[in-house]
Amino acid sequence: MKRAAATIAIAWAFACSLAVGAQQPAGDGPRYAGTALMRPAEYREWIFLSSGLGMNYNAPAPGAPPPARQSFTNVFVNPSSYRSFMQTGKWPDKTVLVLEIRASSGNGSINKDGRFQTTVSGMEVHVKDSRFANGWEFFGFGGGKESAEPMSGQAVAECVSCHAEHGAVDNTFAQFYPTILDAARQKGTLKPGF
Amino acid sequence: MKRAAATIAIAWAFACSLAVGAQQPAGDGPRYAGTALMRPAEYREWIFLSSGLGMNYNAPAPGAPPPARQSFTNVFVNPSSYRSFMQTGKWPDKTVLVLEIRASSGNGSINKDGRFQTTVSGMEVHVKDSRFANGWEFFGFGGGKESAEPMSGQAVAECVSCHAEHGAVDNTFAQFYPTILDAARQKGTLKPGF
Repeated sequence: MKRAAATIAIAWAFACSLAVGAQQPAGDGPRYAGTALMRPAEYREWIFLSSGLGMNYNAPAPGAPPPARQSFTNVFVNPSSYRSFMQTGKWPDKTVLVLEIRASSGNGSINKDGRFQTTVSGMEVHVKDSRFANGWEFFGFGGGKESAEPMSGQAVAECVSCHAEHGAVDNTFAQFYPTILDAARQKGTLKPGF
Repeated sequence: MKRAAATIAIAWAFACSLAVGAQQPAGDGPRYAGTALMRPAEYREWIFLSSGLGMNYNAPAPGAPPPARQSFTNVFVNPSSYRSFMQTGKWPDKTVLVLEIRASSGNGSINKDGRFQTTVSGMEVHVKDSRFANGWEFFGFGGGKESAEPMSGQAVAECVSCHAEHGAVDNTFAQFYPTILDAARQKGTLKPGF
């Protein structure tokens, strides 16, 4: 009887460890604490999609101050989703896109023209997950915080509608990511008009 | 006798395959065909170090034409060397740095200001390998070629001396790669003056 009880206890412990494993997959997808997304700690080792300098939805006002126009935006994606996109032209469930915003400098060391990247000034994350009602959610990681609830309110509503309307592939601005754009074109997954 | 001969033949074939394997390691380091470097086919899945827009060693001439000032330069490194650098602040032997040059556009889709990246217009590779007399060599992969001999002549001599004199860490412009710069600062491997 003792041996049988021990066997059952071991089997139960094993089943529980499997259940815990299922909640937090070991891969490179999103990690949550309740409804909050955990900061993707390793994103600088993910796949780089592209960067822009001073990109803006609005034309510059005459005499606009330079800081916002001199920020770089780097976009990274988790490697497993990148490889899936290159095969299919579509983002799989559990895709994590990181937008890292960096300040820039012009004169430094031997550089005498143009801009190069310096310190991080912001970070936003866009996640595709079947757990969300709309399939995708935005998260803001300003100030170096370790977890973030989904963004809400009017500001993010504009992000959501703009991405849905103008994203070249599935709510994402694939038109600005050259290798992704090429793959989507080859696979025929670009929205009509691109 | 026939069986013994067959056994010797198999053993010899196995020894040869091991020798071939030793010449072309399976990792993410440089691959050569004789003295030529093979194009690093997977570099877009390597670690992104940073990008710049219109960076130049010289100040712009008055009325300089825009194309050269509107190219992005993306730098990637093979993952094993990146991880080694983050641990030690030094580039290991077999480090491969890829400089990808991309044209840019300003107005496109919803973008109304700044620049975003478009097509590849050039590619140079900088390799650290004990097989080279100076430890490092430059290779040009313009025109999409699949292999390249080490660059030579006056043009590359200027690259070599400038990198040696002004590179913040071991012949590389670590001062322009934020995560590398931070790691080198922490490990105390920055050249004096940085």
